[in-house]
Amino acid sequence: MRERLVVVGGDAAGMSAATQVRRRRPDLDVVALEKGSWTSYSACGIPYLVAGDVDSPEQLVARSPEQFRAEHRIDVRLRQEAVALDLDARTVEVRDHEHDRTYRLDFDQLMIGTGAHPVRPDLPGIGRPSVYGVQTLDDGAALLDRARRARCDDVVVVGGGYIGLEMAEAFHRRGARVTIVEGADRVMSRTVDADIAAHIHEAIRGLGIELRLGERVESFEDGWVHTSSGPLRADVAVLGLGVAPNGELAGAAGIALGPHGAVHVDRRQRTSAEGVYAAGDCADTWHRVARRPIHIALGTVANKTGRVAGINLAGGYATFPGVVGTAITKICSTELGRTGLTETEAAEAGYDAVVARIEVTTRAGYFPGTQPMIVKLLAEKGTGLVLGAQIVGGDGAAKRIDTVAAALTAGFDVTALVDLDLAYAPPFSSVWDPIQVAARQALGRI
Amino acid sequence: MRERLVVVGGDAAGMSAATQVRRRRPDLDVVALEKGSWTSYSACGIPYLVAGDVDSPEQLVARSPEQFRAEHRIDVRLRQEAVALDLDARTVEVRDHEHDRTYRLDFDQLMIGTGAHPVRPDLPGIGRPSVYGVQTLDDGAALLDRARRARCDDVVVVGGGYIGLEMAEAFHRRGARVTIVEGADRVMSRTVDADIAAHIHEAIRGLGIELRLGERVESFEDGWVHTSSGPLRADVAVLGLGVAPNGELAGAAGIALGPHGAVHVDRRQRTSAEGVYAAGDCADTWHRVARRPIHIALGTVANKTGRVAGINLAGGYATFPGVVGTAITKICSTELGRTGLTETEAAEAGYDAVVARIEVTTRAGYFPGTQPMIVKLLAEKGTGLVLGAQIVGGDGAAKRIDTVAAALTAGFDVTALVDLDLAYAPPFSSVWDPIQVAARQALGRI
Repeated sequence: MRERLVVVGGDAAGMSAATQVRRRRPDLDVVALEKGSWTSYSACGIPYLVAGDVDSPEQLVARSPEQFRAEHRIDVRLRQEAVALDLDARTVEVRDHEHDRTYRLDFDQLMIGTGAHPVRPDLPGIGRPSVYGVQTLDDGAALLDRARRARCDDVVVVGGGYIGLEMAEAFHRRGARVTIVEGADRVMSRTVDADIAAHIHEAIRGLGIELRLGERVESFEDGWVHTSSGPLRADVAVLGLGVAPNGELAGAAGIALGPHGAVHVDRRQRTSAEGVYAAGDCADTWHRVARRPIHIALGTVANKTGRVAGINLAGGYATFPGVVGTAITKICSTELGRTGLTETEAAEAGYDAVVARIEVTTRAGYFPGTQPMIVKLLAEKGTGLVLGAQIVGGDGAAKRIDTVAAALTAGFDVTALVDLDLAYAPPFSSVWDPIQVAARQALGRI
Repeated sequence: MRERLVVVGGDAAGMSAATQVRRRRPDLDVVALEKGSWTSYSACGIPYLVAGDVDSPEQLVARSPEQFRAEHRIDVRLRQEAVALDLDARTVEVRDHEHDRTYRLDFDQLMIGTGAHPVRPDLPGIGRPSVYGVQTLDDGAALLDRARRARCDDVVVVGGGYIGLEMAEAFHRRGARVTIVEGADRVMSRTVDADIAAHIHEAIRGLGIELRLGERVESFEDGWVHTSSGPLRADVAVLGLGVAPNGELAGAAGIALGPHGAVHVDRRQRTSAEGVYAAGDCADTWHRVARRPIHIALGTVANKTGRVAGINLAGGYATFPGVVGTAITKICSTELGRTGLTETEAAEAGYDAVVARIEVTTRAGYFPGTQPMIVKLLAEKGTGLVLGAQIVGGDGAAKRIDTVAAALTAGFDVTALVDLDLAYAPPFSSVWDPIQVAARQALGRI
């Protein structure tokens, strides 16, 4: 029998690995098992599918199973779920949901890309059909179908993380009355500091979305969500409480999990088991600034780590050095970017951080269409080492965070940021780039 | 008598230095001589003033002479030109154009920020009033006044550098018939490679601006510009042939000039003369990638080097490590950014460069409003060291060049670019950031 790689999970991490392996090992038998109905899709595009920016789930698919079969000779099997691994026997037990049967598949090497699932707290009624998680394209398609099929005037979004906010805007744009219920005193509490979140609150409320902070959801029933403050009308409830890694399959087989329940991997994406790799939302990764393993469910990381796993699975050599904590989102016309550590995270990581916070404009101050923009920059006291940044503002504000992400990766101090040769022309920036204005303020405080 | 700093030139470099000195040395007598009528203005804003985006020259002024006098106790003297320096006697000879007299001013320290002037080739008629250079705000105000005052239906822009292109668009938007005459076979020939320039040609011609390449201007007369191909109607001719540093004042006093005729400075902005500093468009600077002194006339550099000069003049310590060659512009809706070395420059600097060139989109491919975007990335053969990038494309394309500018500064190779944790969400980017798509292509070629 030919040597076989089995890939568990047909989205970004799994299929990136599979295509890398195929390119380097034309001889290998590559089988990819996907429990859902889609391969290699943009889960990040689901809010735009629901909002109507994108016409159909198919548009979010980068490569279809047919393409993988025809162009890459990868045996993609949809609606087939890996339910158990036997690492000694080198077999995976597969539940074939399409034909309602179970079979075993031999493997020589295994790639785990099982993804993550939306957190579902154990609340009365959370299993009802009107309560939707948003993680897979099947989830997205189901939610869109529901929104099109029946009355969807009142929507409650549970949780104010970035998925929650994007889904809230999506339903708002569909014409629904939307309420966000967030237990913390602010949205994106794990992503940005309170002063930055305050601007997001403004943007949300400016859209006419109701934002309820410090309020907990207690139960669900058809047509209603009950919170600590009373009942809310809800034709549909959307869970935006974050996601948790699908580490059970690996864990049950004895593969080591990290502190967050994600499959623990080394810098080559190797798990604790010989010949078994993991990548994407199911695995942990390294935070280069906090210097600890974290679990982060992002398409960028899934693609990168899947590629690295694939190169190594094929006998090559590649490493993934980790993330610096970059993320970006948009609420209507307000953009938000962050990277590195927030004030809270810097304190947790043991840094004494100085904070610069400046209010500037997205273009030269005199340029038509210039919009307000806030840059918050954190640097280590004494050394001036850049620790992180948060940017909130109008058109063109947020993607500037990449400059700080590169600076964090390079280990720049704020003087190096001040010296950077950043692009300036009046339609793009002030002559001192906003990041450098913040860096100069920080420089005066270290 | 109190110790005195004389600053020659009242724009970005001179006044940045002056304010830094004032902050650190409240005791010092600070006199700033400006031969024109304005201080601390955005020369880069002139095209937008002419186009009508900005209402008046005053809007381009960051700080007025009155503000410098009142808030910073800087004795700003307008329309007073330093015409000679005596370094032994420590005096500057000043021509007071306002009162038509000449006087001498003692100094202890001197800051030279005399700027640059538009290149004016020795052609018949170039001194005519209908031929305008665009460098100072006085130039810009005069040109705007001319455009408002009299017929301005036909405009010829001589030279297709970025100032020429921005002025061409400005007059096009004022409703003029605009022709650009460029002697080289492409626009921006010193800024981008031919393949990238081709996209700018499309953008220019798409506006209805006539673009004449490989054609030389031979003479000017009232109402006409004569080129190697014949006469062109021209109510106004605008020079966009680049600028040359105003190094004569320093050179005549025996201060060393660099290879481009700019005042040569060290990393603290010190000239060859004791107690004499220079910064901005009149001085040379260091190219960190090409590793040689260059002359570059940009507001960003003027502000940064002026600040560094000021800190050192005040007895502090600051250095300017140089530039990486970043520039950005916009022709209608087409954005252009560049940093590091072009193919031509890389060859000149002795690098064997591999080139990656990718065509992607500014947002996720499925996202509404996504626009084409081209990223060209150069890396050193063998080592993979990033050497430069050029980006051309729609809304949000060009400012991404900052990420490469930071990478060049850090000395990243293309693998480090592939690994960078860049921000992704569908409204902002593809999941593999365009810069990383280019880096992956380069990685396959080194």
